Amino acid sequence: MRYSPLFWPVKLKGKIIYILDETQLPVKLTYIKARDFRQACVAIKEMKTRAVGQVILVFYTFLQAIKQKKDLKKVASALNATRPTLPFCFLTEMVLGWQAKGLPLEKCIAGFLDKLKNARIQQAREASKLLRNGDVVLTHCNISGSLPLIGEFCRKLNKKVSFFVTETRPYLQGSRLSAWELKEQGFQVTVIADNMVAQVMSEGKSNKVIVGADHLAGNGDIANKIGTYQIALLAKHFKIPFYVLCPPASKAKTGRDIKIELRPDKELLEYQGIQLAPEGVRGYYPAFDITPNELITKHIYLEI
Amino acid sequence: MRYSPLFWPVKLKGKIIYILDETQLPVKLTYIKARDFRQACVAIKEMKTRAVGQVILVFYTFLQAIKQKKDLKKVASALNATRPTLPFCFLTEMVLGWQAKGLPLEKCIAGFLDKLKNARIQQAREASKLLRNGDVVLTHCNISGSLPLIGEFCRKLNKKVSFFVTETRPYLQGSRLSAWELKEQGFQVTVIADNMVAQVMSEGKSNKVIVGADHLAGNGDIANKIGTYQIALLAKHFKIPFYVLCPPASKAKTGRDIKIELRPDKELLEYQGIQLAPEGVRGYYPAFDITPNELITKHIYLEI
Repeated sequence: MRYSPLFWPVKLKGKIIYILDETQLPVKLTYIKARDFRQACVAIKEMKTRAVGQVILVFYTFLQAIKQKKDLKKVASALNATRPTLPFCFLTEMVLGWQAKGLPLEKCIAGFLDKLKNARIQQAREASKLLRNGDVVLTHCNISGSLPLIGEFCRKLNKKVSFFVTETRPYLQGSRLSAWELKEQGFQVTVIADNMVAQVMSEGKSNKVIVGADHLAGNGDIANKIGTYQIALLAKHFKIPFYVLCPPASKAKTGRDIKIELRPDKELLEYQGIQLAPEGVRGYYPAFDITPNELITKHIYLEI
Repeated sequence: MRYSPLFWPVKLKGKIIYILDETQLPVKLTYIKARDFRQACVAIKEMKTRAVGQVILVFYTFLQAIKQKKDLKKVASALNATRPTLPFCFLTEMVLGWQAKGLPLEKCIAGFLDKLKNARIQQAREASKLLRNGDVVLTHCNISGSLPLIGEFCRKLNKKVSFFVTETRPYLQGSRLSAWELKEQGFQVTVIADNMVAQVMSEGKSNKVIVGADHLAGNGDIANKIGTYQIALLAKHFKIPFYVLCPPASKAKTGRDIKIELRPDKELLEYQGIQLAPEGVRGYYPAFDITPNELITKHIYLEI
């Protein structure tokens, strides 16, 4: 089975963490080094890595900090303060919990990451069962290598699937990351602007939606990249199944308990130094939105 | 009353037509020259001007061609072949009809343009009556100066209104044109990405939608910039009034009779020479979509 570099975008070698710099894709496949937890936190804040990359990075940062004999509570606090929507607390409390119980920390972390990897493969396999030969899957943002993996499982069963990808402004995870990893693995992929979803659905060009989630609440509500909610509303209108690859549920009871990150409006109003809007105009950039449980046809859970 | 340069973006001086180059905004306010109908057609195809600019340009092109003693049927054919969604035929047949009836052509054209200008001002006045003090209007793409004019009419009546503008990928008419002209006239304007509409509506940050239309069918369906349709669907979901500033109805009976222009996918996959997606990936770029009559709370007609 072939894996996208985005499937496991962070590595730990000795005391150095190597983070796939997703801001450079698809032009360059390059890794940046994090030599301590502060550098790891900067990489998260600057969105050098995102989605599952952040989860893996949290655990490698603890492994690194253990080797560096750092105060793990301090490490946890710094990680928790990076970005609000992904439940960092949930992950760091897991590690501090193992520590409090006197369990062998490095072994627990390695074991968890192993289970995470296997569970993600199993999750992609489960998702592939929902697809039929000829399906055209619309996706938004990027699910860190899960989508090409779903495609590979379909291939094994001789089911041909192809993809529509929303570009996912302003960071362009769709056109830069999803389109790239799908194309690299030989899948047919078509990029559309975020405002073309209803048109594509109304023309019958796509018949399934699969997205990821950064946060799963207890009642099934999810937080995912801004734009997911309106795609879910449109999928409901056009009677198209809307599937979500979920992380483990956090302690949030409902989507209302999930904090939505607001990013600097400069990230919306400029692109690679080019001004996209006149000086002095404000932008509003919520980085995530909440899709309520009732709009989700099926949650594909991560069975860790 | 103050007018945006986009309200009447084409001028005729002697035998030269001056076209506001909308691709250069908001960085430069510059006009390009069209010395004959072929140059006018290129400006339309390359989207140097768009929306009402195209309508005005059609009539000035005929005035220029009359002075240059050109065959007006040839001029009409060239204009009709530029872009498919705006009903160029409807405009050129009007002029050829006046010619066939032996009417004084230059006078007829000047008279029509005069009526068009007054009707657009009246249309903005009518739209302003639908707004209340404190309203926050969400718009998509650009309505050629009508929106700041609506704002000016509101000001006259001491109604304070502000605006949310979708950036409108890939050409960015929202952030480059609408945000610019609204800001220039002192209105508060906030730019969002096209994928943030549901979030803004669900947060109650906007309570009215006003868009324009490139084509009005007999049954009230409209064609407008891609993305309009999904905003109309979301407005319906969130029970937000959806108003459309319409051109005169064409001969199309319904939206199904309106041809949707497909633009080159390069315009979606590159921005100012920067590659936004990996090489070899395809894009799909329908430039317009159809919003059915039943999603439109009120058509604001152009009474010519």
